Amino acid sequence: MKDIEIARAADMKPIARIAQNLEIPEDALEPYGRFKAKVNLDEMPEVNSRPHGKLILVTAVSPTPAGEGKTTTTVGLGDALNRIGLKTTICLREPSLGPCFGMKGGAAGGGYAQVVPMEDINLHFTGDLHAITAAHNLLSAMIDNHIYWGNAENIDQRRIMWRRVVDINDRSLRSITTGLGGVSNGYPSESGYDITVASEVMAVLCLAENLQDLQDRLGRLLIAYRKDKTPVYCRDLKADGAMTALLKDAFRPNLVQTLENNPAFIHGGPFANIAHGCNSVIATKTALRLSDYVVTEAGFGADLGAEKFFNIKCRQAGLTPNAVVVVATVRALKMHGGVAKNALTEENIDALEKGMSNLERHVKNCQSYGVPVIVAINRYGPDTDQEIASIIQRMEKLGVKAVPCTHWANGSKGTEQLATSVSEILQTTEADFKHLYEDDLGLWKKIRRICKKIYGASKVTCDQSVKDQLKAYEEQGYGHLSVCMAKTPYSFSTDPSLLGAPTDYSIHVRAVRLSAGAGFIVALTGDIMVMPGLPRHPAAETIGLDENGQVEGLF
Amino acid sequence: MKDIEIARAADMKPIARIAQNLEIPEDALEPYGRFKAKVNLDEMPEVNSRPHGKLILVTAVSPTPAGEGKTTTTVGLGDALNRIGLKTTICLREPSLGPCFGMKGGAAGGGYAQVVPMEDINLHFTGDLHAITAAHNLLSAMIDNHIYWGNAENIDQRRIMWRRVVDINDRSLRSITTGLGGVSNGYPSESGYDITVASEVMAVLCLAENLQDLQDRLGRLLIAYRKDKTPVYCRDLKADGAMTALLKDAFRPNLVQTLENNPAFIHGGPFANIAHGCNSVIATKTALRLSDYVVTEAGFGADLGAEKFFNIKCRQAGLTPNAVVVVATVRALKMHGGVAKNALTEENIDALEKGMSNLERHVKNCQSYGVPVIVAINRYGPDTDQEIASIIQRMEKLGVKAVPCTHWANGSKGTEQLATSVSEILQTTEADFKHLYEDDLGLWKKIRRICKKIYGASKVTCDQSVKDQLKAYEEQGYGHLSVCMAKTPYSFSTDPSLLGAPTDYSIHVRAVRLSAGAGFIVALTGDIMVMPGLPRHPAAETIGLDENGQVEGLF
Repeated sequence: MKDIEIARAADMKPIARIAQNLEIPEDALEPYGRFKAKVNLDEMPEVNSRPHGKLILVTAVSPTPAGEGKTTTTVGLGDALNRIGLKTTICLREPSLGPCFGMKGGAAGGGYAQVVPMEDINLHFTGDLHAITAAHNLLSAMIDNHIYWGNAENIDQRRIMWRRVVDINDRSLRSITTGLGGVSNGYPSESGYDITVASEVMAVLCLAENLQDLQDRLGRLLIAYRKDKTPVYCRDLKADGAMTALLKDAFRPNLVQTLENNPAFIHGGPFANIAHGCNSVIATKTALRLSDYVVTEAGFGADLGAEKFFNIKCRQAGLTPNAVVVVATVRALKMHGGVAKNALTEENIDALEKGMSNLERHVKNCQSYGVPVIVAINRYGPDTDQEIASIIQRMEKLGVKAVPCTHWANGSKGTEQLATSVSEILQTTEADFKHLYEDDLGLWKKIRRICKKIYGASKVTCDQSVKDQLKAYEEQGYGHLSVCMAKTPYSFSTDPSLLGAPTDYSIHVRAVRLSAGAGFIVALTGDIMVMPGLPRHPAAETIGLDENGQVEGLF
Repeated sequence: MKDIEIARAADMKPIARIAQNLEIPEDALEPYGRFKAKVNLDEMPEVNSRPHGKLILVTAVSPTPAGEGKTTTTVGLGDALNRIGLKTTICLREPSLGPCFGMKGGAAGGGYAQVVPMEDINLHFTGDLHAITAAHNLLSAMIDNHIYWGNAENIDQRRIMWRRVVDINDRSLRSITTGLGGVSNGYPSESGYDITVASEVMAVLCLAENLQDLQDRLGRLLIAYRKDKTPVYCRDLKADGAMTALLKDAFRPNLVQTLENNPAFIHGGPFANIAHGCNSVIATKTALRLSDYVVTEAGFGADLGAEKFFNIKCRQAGLTPNAVVVVATVRALKMHGGVAKNALTEENIDALEKGMSNLERHVKNCQSYGVPVIVAINRYGPDTDQEIASIIQRMEKLGVKAVPCTHWANGSKGTEQLATSVSEILQTTEADFKHLYEDDLGLWKKIRRICKKIYGASKVTCDQSVKDQLKAYEEQGYGHLSVCMAKTPYSFSTDPSLLGAPTDYSIHVRAVRLSAGAGFIVALTGDIMVMPGLPRHPAAETIGLDENGQVEGLF
């Protein structure tokens, strides 16, 4: 059965029922249709006095075209923890609408490990991405409008850092000129569009603690430089209040359910390269107050996703993770061991052993944060018992349990063993969580530490201009910020073709950027795509409504 | 009290209660929060067998800076009809988010004649405008993507008619160049942004009968011309299905309530110049099935709004209006009589008598459609009894009742007399509705007839190229379409400074455009603005959240 067919056959409960199970008061529930709701935390102030549940991060090996199933494992583990009687909530990122019309495939899990209603979640959902787009572009309009009406702030039009966003894959908008057509349209200027999830407004929404913090962060957005090279912030144009007003509903966590009627918050989804790639702090914290266990995921492989989860999200939010699950598949590990995509169904222990270097490095990295680690082997049909056993044995050497899972085919039954193992490790092993670096290490040293300790690079280089820029940020008072690495997810290195666990390579930091609202310095390596294009035959060509008015072709 | 304070003090009932009064089945109600809902007509197929209520259009004199109060009168009349025991639903246009951040002021009525929840309605509401923006821009992206991947349709890049839209006032985007920055970003091309309500997708959504009709109309959108000058439609790029999927929820009417807890559909809001300026056909038809009386409004003055309501909306949807209410104010009529805005509080019967030429022509125009007419005098504090009496007497000569109203200050009590008069005329006078022109009149003759019969122009001119284009449209099979005039609303003529009822003037049709999806030919006169700019001090600068998390500064 296709994902969409399974999703449609789901026996969804009214969202009010799901909320009841979490003891969310009725007044705090704002339904969006019958199976989605926003939770209005203003109506449940007592939530902060509830005890804090345990936080489990699901991350993965370096992604390959074979697929890993990080989201399905997150859903499957959440369902299975509930299955064995532990009150658990899942926290996922909110998908972007645009890419659905490019390549096929949504982002709400798959098989029997899905969150529903799937079409809604993948299309407009509760409008959060539209609100972010509107808030972002209002600021863009206010910048040009400020210049149009006399430019009192003396903004250097060549140094406007704030672009525009749209939630559509549109390569034609990457680089544009605006303000053409005469006096009444303003001054000709360079601009361009990124996809909405790449907006710093998204990162800000996902890191803010409350509405006041949201507005303060929006006020700090760096939008341009003056002709004297001093920075201009969003608050200088008084745009932060209106942006907050546009985002007030978007800031409330979205509650949906899994196929097995367990609660899931799906809220916020920043890019995992130029931003930190985790769902919102407000959703995670709310979930932790409402349940005993929270399972969440982070973008890409553990080198990017887990590292940013620990060093950006957990650091800013004061969160302490209690366990990490690293997802791997036999197929992906064989690709890391050099097998081509069309030969993955044949048993190949040698390649598997070779490719496990990738898993091994991710596991060791996660262990270095002082958090207990479990490996989930997301099992596919053609995987042989011998292959599965090889992974288990290899992980044993690291003192790590590896557990096969079949949630895609079997739902929570297929992750019950994983859930039991996770629950055991939470009881037996106390995490001693520590960040990779301290706030005052210095920006360049932070970059070096990530590249060397996490990526395994032997050398880290940059031009003098990058060092000068980092020094300038430190002088401006941004030295304490975390670093957000923008790197290809496909390799530990910056070369996507270097699979496995490469050594003896160098990383070049091309440029650095300040995300003052989100609260990190982005270090750019290689080409980073922030506006995808549509393929030759976009999925949009086959998407439509069937005779029952249901969406077809989306998945 | 400010509008926002009155709105906040409202004693709103749960939207499910409002729906119950209309006998909307529970399964057909999709709540968006507790005071907004979409009505899913698929869940209430029996609605089409219910009898049809009576349809009352509220229109107005030519707008002036003094304000007329068309929306408040629509709300006030609806409330008062309910007050006198007649089951009545109000149908309004849905406001655009963008302009709220420019000049102050929302679009949900005012005083004690409002629809609520006001902030929600004026901000994201149920996301319809965002869905329209997404559907429109998906098509834009698919056009450029088609050219990028080889341009199989041989589209002439200089003749792309489909622009982009955003729901923000952003003058810098009126005229842009896209596809800059190298090979991977496509081909440099001219484009530009209109505000979302100006999108033909909005007009299509408002005129479609059902989802299939919606998709068919989207498929007919004219997007470009080929190098051989043949037209390229949306369906040629297979974008119509995905656009329909994006619009499936937006197509469902939105139910809210008035301050007096009466039902109001607020759904769709196309521009009233380059489009037809009426709320959606689906909302109007649904309301007519659910209640005995439906009060609706159309954009601008009766020369534009009522004319398009009759000749575009009613024609396409097969609707028959039963009565027309023309709203006038003493202040506006005095301005039409030559009084300056700062002298409107002084009694001035001469100027009023002079300015009533404007009201008189609108009333006669409405009568020419064979529909009974009533004038609503929206009374302001400084209006004298003598002034009110003058209007009543003058209208009596046309056989038309003029009724003073004070709904802004008094709610439905202030429109009770108007409601009684409307109810009487509906019982005593059978409408004999006829369109201004037949389908087969010919496009140029249709334009001439509107300009001469409705506007009172003595002469109608255009360049030969316009006539040639109209002929080409007729040859392509579009001769039967209605004409949609894009003209300044401030005068019957194309010169906004010609107030009252100008005669002996000429109208020049500058250009014509085909809106094949919406099903009309747009005739452009003068400069038509489809992307507003922000003022020197946009309202956005003072909008924000107060300490209770409520929006302030918006109204």
